[in-house]
Amino acid sequence: MESLYVIKIGGNIIDDELLLTAFLKKFAAIKSKKLIVHGGGKLATRMAEKLGIPQQIIDGRRITDAETLKIVIMVYAGYVNKNIVAELQSLLCNAAGISGADGNSILSHKRERAGIDYGFAGDVDRVNTGWFNQLLENGLALVVAPITHDGKNQLLNTNADTIAQEIAKSMSSFYNVTLIYSFEKPGVLLDVEDENSVIKILHTGYYGELKESKKIFGGMIPKLDNAFASVRQGVYKVIIGKAEDLDQLINGKSGTTISHE
Amino acid sequence: MESLYVIKIGGNIIDDELLLTAFLKKFAAIKSKKLIVHGGGKLATRMAEKLGIPQQIIDGRRITDAETLKIVIMVYAGYVNKNIVAELQSLLCNAAGISGADGNSILSHKRERAGIDYGFAGDVDRVNTGWFNQLLENGLALVVAPITHDGKNQLLNTNADTIAQEIAKSMSSFYNVTLIYSFEKPGVLLDVEDENSVIKILHTGYYGELKESKKIFGGMIPKLDNAFASVRQGVYKVIIGKAEDLDQLINGKSGTTISHE
Repeated sequence: MESLYVIKIGGNIIDDELLLTAFLKKFAAIKSKKLIVHGGGKLATRMAEKLGIPQQIIDGRRITDAETLKIVIMVYAGYVNKNIVAELQSLLCNAAGISGADGNSILSHKRERAGIDYGFAGDVDRVNTGWFNQLLENGLALVVAPITHDGKNQLLNTNADTIAQEIAKSMSSFYNVTLIYSFEKPGVLLDVEDENSVIKILHTGYYGELKESKKIFGGMIPKLDNAFASVRQGVYKVIIGKAEDLDQLINGKSGTTISHE
Repeated sequence: MESLYVIKIGGNIIDDELLLTAFLKKFAAIKSKKLIVHGGGKLATRMAEKLGIPQQIIDGRRITDAETLKIVIMVYAGYVNKNIVAELQSLLCNAAGISGADGNSILSHKRERAGIDYGFAGDVDRVNTGWFNQLLENGLALVVAPITHDGKNQLLNTNADTIAQEIAKSMSSFYNVTLIYSFEKPGVLLDVEDENSVIKILHTGYYGELKESKKIFGGMIPKLDNAFASVRQGVYKVIIGKAEDLDQLINGKSGTTISHE
């Protein structure tokens, strides 16, 4: 099968013009089919502050009330998305920016859990692989904003990691999908204090050992659990590392590769 | 040739939820290929006010400084565009929202005229008909935000009327294009005080007479000059009227039709 790269970039890249350019140059140079999923960085928070909209965070997640939803649609699907696309065009990489509403790309439903109002947060139901395939086959690189819709005229703020994972899993029926998670560190570290201690390959057994010996802990666990779930569900491999080292993540000289075995 | 409807909607529709829904229902019901070009309505101005960004207007055109450009990208290509797409999806009309950067749709250059700094305003150079055709042939209705790019990593604020006209002209090589301009009035009026005095068909000769007798004057003249230029350059017809009467504009029961003869 042909290769497809699904690359999630986060705030540390989006908020830093030089890092973003370094990443986009390497992304543009990838010859295979390719797709970026981006978050919004600090701009949404800054906009909310300037507009005097109070931001509520529960369990590390921003509560998307109606006013915050407006801002994230503007910043994610508008400003960040179109700026990335324009920069890719200038690098002669023909790209199209989409949200989950465009082409009915990503259907979701409003998250409902007893006792907690998450506001307009979406949980993904379905990725429209036909439409993704059409665009990729037309030679376009895709830039996906983390906004989905419920088919009933409601746009929903949706976690970008989840979107990347859902696209990667769904597209695995058609491509050898490599899912790359951009990270502040050069990979998963054996010693959090030592950036030279990157674990090159992490398989299920080794991961179990590292969790047991508490060498991997905290926020890394849900991230890695999701990565392992992705490879179990058909994704060829997951790589975690610095987006600005994209070429080296792809050729195996940097980052942590998560494999199923 | 197959028909294509290119419909420009302005602030009066975008700012009024009920009118917008009435319009979108009629738009969704069109069986031919179809495309909306939208402006931004009052939201961009309101956002600029709230963020304390002074707006400079010269000759009725907003000067797009760097901060204003950010806002129009957010509002036009983000908020307005994605809300229209989500509403069309809820009406079971599969739509994709694009800016001029996406798929390299619309290339422009920064407007430069001796003595006046228009800021980041774009004049259209080229419409990528191949990409528009691909999307339309995939069965999508398109929603185009009035943001273009120069191929050198600069997004540019671009007049929505002009974008509609340029798309209509370029697509005339492939389709019988009807270009519809949404208007506050039911059409071009013979007597501006009388909404029942809509001119049904306006051809070049009659237009000349009406200009001479000053029955058509002011802001209508550049609008109509552009409409006549469009039909001279291949557009099948131009219709001016209320977007919420879309079905009647198409079947000839409302609006003013501009024809070449």
